Amino acid sequence: MIRLESDYLEGAHPLIIEHLTETNMEQTPGYGTDVHCQNASNLIRSACRAPEADVHFLVGGTQTNAVVITSVLRPHQGVICAETGHINVHETGAIEARGHKVLPLPSQDGKLSAAAVRACYDAHYSDNDREHIVQPGMVYISHPTENGTTYTAKELEELSCLCRELSLPLYLDGARLSYGLAAPVNDLSLEMIARLCDIFYIGGTKTGALFGEALVITSPSLKKDFRYLIKQQGAMLAKGRLLGIQFETLFTDELYIQIARHAVNLAMDIKKTFQEKGIALYYDSCTNQQFPVLNKQQIKVLAETYSFSHWKDLPDDKTVIRLCTSWATDPEYVRQLCRDIREKL
Amino acid sequence: MIRLESDYLEGAHPLIIEHLTETNMEQTPGYGTDVHCQNASNLIRSACRAPEADVHFLVGGTQTNAVVITSVLRPHQGVICAETGHINVHETGAIEARGHKVLPLPSQDGKLSAAAVRACYDAHYSDNDREHIVQPGMVYISHPTENGTTYTAKELEELSCLCRELSLPLYLDGARLSYGLAAPVNDLSLEMIARLCDIFYIGGTKTGALFGEALVITSPSLKKDFRYLIKQQGAMLAKGRLLGIQFETLFTDELYIQIARHAVNLAMDIKKTFQEKGIALYYDSCTNQQFPVLNKQQIKVLAETYSFSHWKDLPDDKTVIRLCTSWATDPEYVRQLCRDIREKL
Amino acid sequence: MIRLESDYLEGAHPLIIEHLTETNMEQTPGYGTDVHCQNASNLIRSACRAPEADVHFLVGGTQTNAVVITSVLRPHQGVICAETGHINVHETGAIEARGHKVLPLPSQDGKLSAAAVRACYDAHYSDNDREHIVQPGMVYISHPTENGTTYTAKELEELSCLCRELSLPLYLDGARLSYGLAAPVNDLSLEMIARLCDIFYIGGTKTGALFGEALVITSPSLKKDFRYLIKQQGAMLAKGRLLGIQFETLFTDELYIQIARHAVNLAMDIKKTFQEKGIALYYDSCTNQQFPVLNKQQIKVLAETYSFSHWKDLPDDKTVIRLCTSWATDPEYVRQLCRDIREKL
Amino acid sequence: MIRLESDYLEGAHPLIIEHLTETNMEQTPGYGTDVHCQNASNLIRSACRAPEADVHFLVGGTQTNAVVITSVLRPHQGVICAETGHINVHETGAIEARGHKVLPLPSQDGKLSAAAVRACYDAHYSDNDREHIVQPGMVYISHPTENGTTYTAKELEELSCLCRELSLPLYLDGARLSYGLAAPVNDLSLEMIARLCDIFYIGGTKTGALFGEALVITSPSLKKDFRYLIKQQGAMLAKGRLLGIQFETLFTDELYIQIARHAVNLAMDIKKTFQEKGIALYYDSCTNQQFPVLNKQQIKVLAETYSFSHWKDLPDDKTVIRLCTSWATDPEYVRQLCRDIREKL
Repeated sequence: MIRLESDYLEGAHPLIIEHLTETNMEQTPGYGTDVHCQNASNLIRSACRAPEADVHFLVGGTQTNAVVITSVLRPHQGVICAETGHINVHETGAIEARGHKVLPLPSQDGKLSAAAVRACYDAHYSDNDREHIVQPGMVYISHPTENGTTYTAKELEELSCLCRELSLPLYLDGARLSYGLAAPVNDLSLEMIARLCDIFYIGGTKTGALFGEALVITSPSLKKDFRYLIKQQGAMLAKGRLLGIQFETLFTDELYIQIARHAVNLAMDIKKTFQEKGIALYYDSCTNQQFPVLNKQQIKVLAETYSFSHWKDLPDDKTVIRLCTSWATDPEYVRQLCRDIREKL
Repeated sequence: MIRLESDYLEGAHPLIIEHLTETNMEQTPGYGTDVHCQNASNLIRSACRAPEADVHFLVGGTQTNAVVITSVLRPHQGVICAETGHINVHETGAIEARGHKVLPLPSQDGKLSAAAVRACYDAHYSDNDREHIVQPGMVYISHPTENGTTYTAKELEELSCLCRELSLPLYLDGARLSYGLAAPVNDLSLEMIARLCDIFYIGGTKTGALFGEALVITSPSLKKDFRYLIKQQGAMLAKGRLLGIQFETLFTDELYIQIARHAVNLAMDIKKTFQEKGIALYYDSCTNQQFPVLNKQQIKVLAETYSFSHWKDLPDDKTVIRLCTSWATDPEYVRQLCRDIREKL
Repeated sequence: MIRLESDYLEGAHPLIIEHLTETNMEQTPGYGTDVHCQNASNLIRSACRAPEADVHFLVGGTQTNAVVITSVLRPHQGVICAETGHINVHETGAIEARGHKVLPLPSQDGKLSAAAVRACYDAHYSDNDREHIVQPGMVYISHPTENGTTYTAKELEELSCLCRELSLPLYLDGARLSYGLAAPVNDLSLEMIARLCDIFYIGGTKTGALFGEALVITSPSLKKDFRYLIKQQGAMLAKGRLLGIQFETLFTDELYIQIARHAVNLAMDIKKTFQEKGIALYYDSCTNQQFPVLNKQQIKVLAETYSFSHWKDLPDDKTVIRLCTSWATDPEYVRQLCRDIREKL
Repeated sequence: MIRLESDYLEGAHPLIIEHLTETNMEQTPGYGTDVHCQNASNLIRSACRAPEADVHFLVGGTQTNAVVITSVLRPHQGVICAETGHINVHETGAIEARGHKVLPLPSQDGKLSAAAVRACYDAHYSDNDREHIVQPGMVYISHPTENGTTYTAKELEELSCLCRELSLPLYLDGARLSYGLAAPVNDLSLEMIARLCDIFYIGGTKTGALFGEALVITSPSLKKDFRYLIKQQGAMLAKGRLLGIQFETLFTDELYIQIARHAVNLAMDIKKTFQEKGIALYYDSCTNQQFPVLNKQQIKVLAETYSFSHWKDLPDDKTVIRLCTSWATDPEYVRQLCRDIREKL
C-alpha cells in the first residue's frame, strides 16, 4: 500500500532526527528559554526580515489557533473565517470552548476576500441591535487553505489594508505555509507575510518536523504576556528545545523551502496527469494537496494500491478524494501513481 | 406615535402589579424558596399535567438558554438549532461564551424538521474524523419561532421521537409560548409540550409579566443540581418571590392564555388586512408577530404614525418589517392601523 | 416570627412600588435605552459628581460581578480579593466559570489592605516562573464587606493610589453601599468612591429596590463595548426601564441614604444592647449587619421569636449568628429584640 | 556548571532516540490510531493488570490535567486538591480557564488525607446555602507530590474508599510516578494504583521521554468520548505514533522503573549526605527531588558549581532549594556533590 492520505505519515526529515540525536544529552533550561529556541527565533526573524517580531514555538496547530485567538479577542468578539476554515470545522469547537463564536463566511475556494470581510463588518455595525450580536474581532485565514488554494500578493495586500482600516488583527494559519511558498503560482514571501499579517504561524508538523509550529507576532499590541497564555492553554512544552532544534534545522540552508519544493513538484505531476486524463480537480490547487473528482469504479481501482482521504460526496454519485505529497514522498511512487492514472482509470 | 415594534413595551398586566403591591411587605426567604414560587410551580405542573416536573424561575430568556444549554451539554458537544434560532443570532454568543458551538441548520421558516436533525446527526457519526468535529448534543427549537411560525403537534411528535431515538435532549424556547398556544392553527397543549420535550420554558417577559421565565424540566436526568447552575450563571433572583407572584397570577384563571388570545386576535386582524390589500407577508405567522413586505413609500407612510422593527432588506428594494401585538395592545390602535393599511398604503 | 436573617425579605420601598404602578402602561424601548434609565443615570452621575461616568443597570450582584470581572481581565489574569469576598465564597464559582482564578488574600475583618495587595503583586512579579502562575489583573473589594465592616477614606485612598501605581483596576462591590454611607463611622462619599475606584456598583436589591444594581464606570479604558458583555452574560433586562424607575426613585430626595440610615440606626441599637449585655460581636460592624457570638442556650431562646442566619461555628462551642436590619425593619420589632436580649439571654 | 535544577534538562533516554530513529520513515495513520500506540497501550494495560482500561497519550502534564478535569466535572463543580497541588499553583489557572474552581485544602507535606477530603465534603453538604458554593466534584492528588513525598498503600486505599463512598472520582497526577514506584519506602504498584484510582497518568516527560504522558482511565463512566476532549483542548498530537513509540520503549524490559531507580538511588545518596552533615531537609522526600534548607553562605558556595531551583524563603533567613536527579544524572556528578556538601558547606 502506497500511502498518500495525508502529509504527516512519517516522522521527521532525517536532518532533524540527526540534530535531535546529537543534542540529546545537552542540558538546557525548560519551556523555550534555551539557546536553540533563541537561535531558531533569530533565524525566523531573519527569514521574515522582521527583527522586532516575537517568535514562540508551540506543539500543534489546533493548540496554536486556540492560544492566538484567545489572546487576541475580548469576550464579546468572534473571529471571521471562511466557512471551510480549520477552526470552523475540524478542531472540535476549540475556539468556542475558549468562549468565542467563529463567524464563518461563504467561500467557494476556501479563501476570504476583502470585500466579504468588509460586508460582514458593515452588517454588524449597521445593525441597531448590534450589542445583541457577536462583534467581529479579528480575521483568520489559512494559507494555503484547507483546499490547497493560495492567496496572491495582491489579495493578501487588500485584506491587510482593510483589516488595518477596520482595526481587525489579521491572523494567518500557515500549517502548510512552506507548500504555499513553493507553489508555482506563488508571489508571496515570508517577508511580505510578516509585513501584511499581525500574527501568523509557520507550520512544522506537516512540513518536515516531528511536530511544532513557529508563531510570529509582528503587531506590538499583540505581544504582551503571550507566554502566560501558552502555559495556561497547555501548549508550553517542558523540553522546549525540541522545538528550537527542529526549527533551527528547517531554517538552515533553506531546508524549509527545499523540502516543500520536492512535495509540490510531485503534486504538480499528479495534477497534470489527472488533467491530461480529463479527470476534473475539485479545487485548483498548486500546492501539495490534490482533489480529483472520481467515480466509484475509479476509486475502487485506485484503492487497490493507494491510500487517500475521502473528502466530499458530490450529488452526481461522484466523490472528491484528497491525495497529499510531502517532504517524504518517494518520487518513484508518484511515477507509479501517474502511470496508473493514465492506464487504469 | 403608536408603538408596535415589540411585545415588551409596557410594564406588566395590571393584575400582576396588583399582586406585587399586595404582597410587598410579606417577609419571605430568598432565592426562589418561598411559598409563592412553590404555588406557582404547582400551578404550572398542574397546567402541564406533569406532576413530577421540576420548575425553576429565571429572569430572562438569554439567561435561561445559557443556563439550560450549559447544564445539559458536555464540553465537546454543541446544540443543533435553526439558523435563525435566537441563540444563534441574537444573544451575543452567550452559548459560545459558555464553551459550546451552536450548530445551525438551514431553515426557511425558522423551524427544524426531524429529517434535518437526523441528517445532521448522521453526518456527524458517519465521519471517520468525527472526534475532530463538535458532537451534536441536544436540539433547541423555539415555539413560536423568531418568525412567528409554529410547530404542529405532528411535527413536534416526530422531532421528539427522533430526539429520544438519538438520545438528544429536546429543549423548547417558549419566550412567546402563550402566543403560540393562542394561535388559530394551534393543535398543541402545554401537556403535549411537557410530554414531548425534555426541558422547556414558558415565557413571562413578553406575555404579561414585568420579567421572568418559568423553566420546566421533565426529563429526570436533567434535573440534578440545576439550582447550582442558576446561581453560577447569575440567574438566581435574590427576591425570588417576585417571579413566583407573577407566575401565580398568570396561571390563575388562565390569564396566561387569555391575554395571548387578545394579542393574537389583533394580529390576525392586521394579517388579514395586509392580505386583502395584496401586501405579502414574509412568513406565514399565526401568532402576535406579523412580517409584511413593504416598499420604501409604504414604510414612509406607516412610519408617520407607527413604530415597528426593521427586519430584513430584500434584493428588490423591498423591506420586511415586524409589527407586534401584545397583551397590552389597545384594539382601537389596531383598528386605526387596519384603516391606514387599507387607505394609505 | 420576626425575621431578621437577611436584608432582602420584603419587596420594595413603597415609593418604588408607586412609581412602577404609575408608569406601568408607558411604552418604552427595551434594554435600558429608555428615558427612565437616562434620568436615573444622570441622577447617579450627579450624586457621584462624575459627569463623564458610564452608568449601567443590572439585575443582581453575582451577575454584576461576573460581567465586570469578565470585561476587565485578560484570560491569564485573576482578581485579588479578601478570602471572605463574595466572589470567592458565595457565587458558585461564577468567576472561575468565566475563566478566571480568584486570588484570595487572608483577612481578619473582610477588608484588603494596600500592603497586602502590594505583597501579592510583588510575589508574582519576583517569581522567575511567573508565567506559570495566574497574574494579578484587578482588585475586588466590597464596601461594606460581607462582615459589615467598612473602609475609611484613608484606607480607600491608599488602596486606590497603589492600584493606580500598579495598573490594577480597582472594583468596589457596593451591594450594601448605602448602609456603609449611613454608618456612624463613615467618612466616605459617593463622590470619593467615584474618584478612587475605577468601577463600582451601587446596590439596589438589598437597599429598597425589588432588584437591581447600578454599575458606575469611571475609568475611560473600561467603558468600551460594555453593553455587549451585559447582553452576553444574560444580564440585560428586556424591560430595562424597571431598573431606571427604581433608581430614579432611590436617587430622588436622597431616599437611598435615608432608608439606609433607618436600618443602620436600628442596627446600632442592637449592637449597643449586645455590648451592654456583655455579649461579644464577632466583627466590629457599624452597618446593618450584626454578628453576635452566642452559646447554644442563647441561640435557642432567640430562635423562639426571631429568625437569623447561622454564620460560623467557633471552636469553643459558640456560634456566630447574623442579624440584619433593612429599610423595611419595623422599629417596634427592634425594641422588642433589645428587650429580649437584655432580659432573656 | 552541573545542572540539577530539574528533571527535564536533557532529551530522552538513548533507547527512545534509537527507536524514534529506526521507525522514522514508517508510514502510520495520525492522531494516536497507529500500531505503536496500540502496542504501548497494551503494555501499559498489562503493567497495570487493567485489561479493560482505556489508555490515551498526551503531550504534557498541564494539558493532561486540563483535559481530565474538564471531562470529569460538571460546570458547578470544583476539584479538591492539596494547596500545593500543581493545578493550584503552577498551571497559570488552566483549570479555572476551563471554568472550574480549584478547592485547595491545607497540607504540610503536599498530600491529601481521607479525613481532610471528608471534612471538605461534609462542610459543603451541611451548608444550607450550598447551591451558592462550588460543589466538590472530584479529587486530585499527585504521587509523588510536588514536594517529593509519597502516599503509602494504606493512605491511598483509604482515600480511594472514601472517594467511592462519596462518588468523587479520584485522579492521580503521576508526572513523576516512576520515581515514586522506585522510592525505598514505596509499597504501591501500578496495579494497585489502577485499582484504587479512577483515572491517572504515567508521566513520561520527566522520566526518560522527550515528552508525553500516558493517561489510564479505569472507571468505565469516565471513558466516553474522551478523544473529542483531547482534540478540543489542543492535546491530540498529529503524529501520535511518537508517543506510542516512546511508551513502547519505556514499558519494555521495565525500562520505566529501571531508570527511576537510578535517579532515586542518587537522590538517596544526596539526602543521606545532607542528613549526616546536619543540614535539614524541608520535606522528607524518598524520591528524586530533595529540598535542603540552606543559609545564604551555603547557597553561595553551592551555586559556584551547581544549578538548582530556589523553592521557598523561610522566615529565619534560610532558604529551601530543590535538587533533582533523573534518569540522565551522571553518578560522578553526584559523588562530587556529596563530597562538596561534606567538605564545603
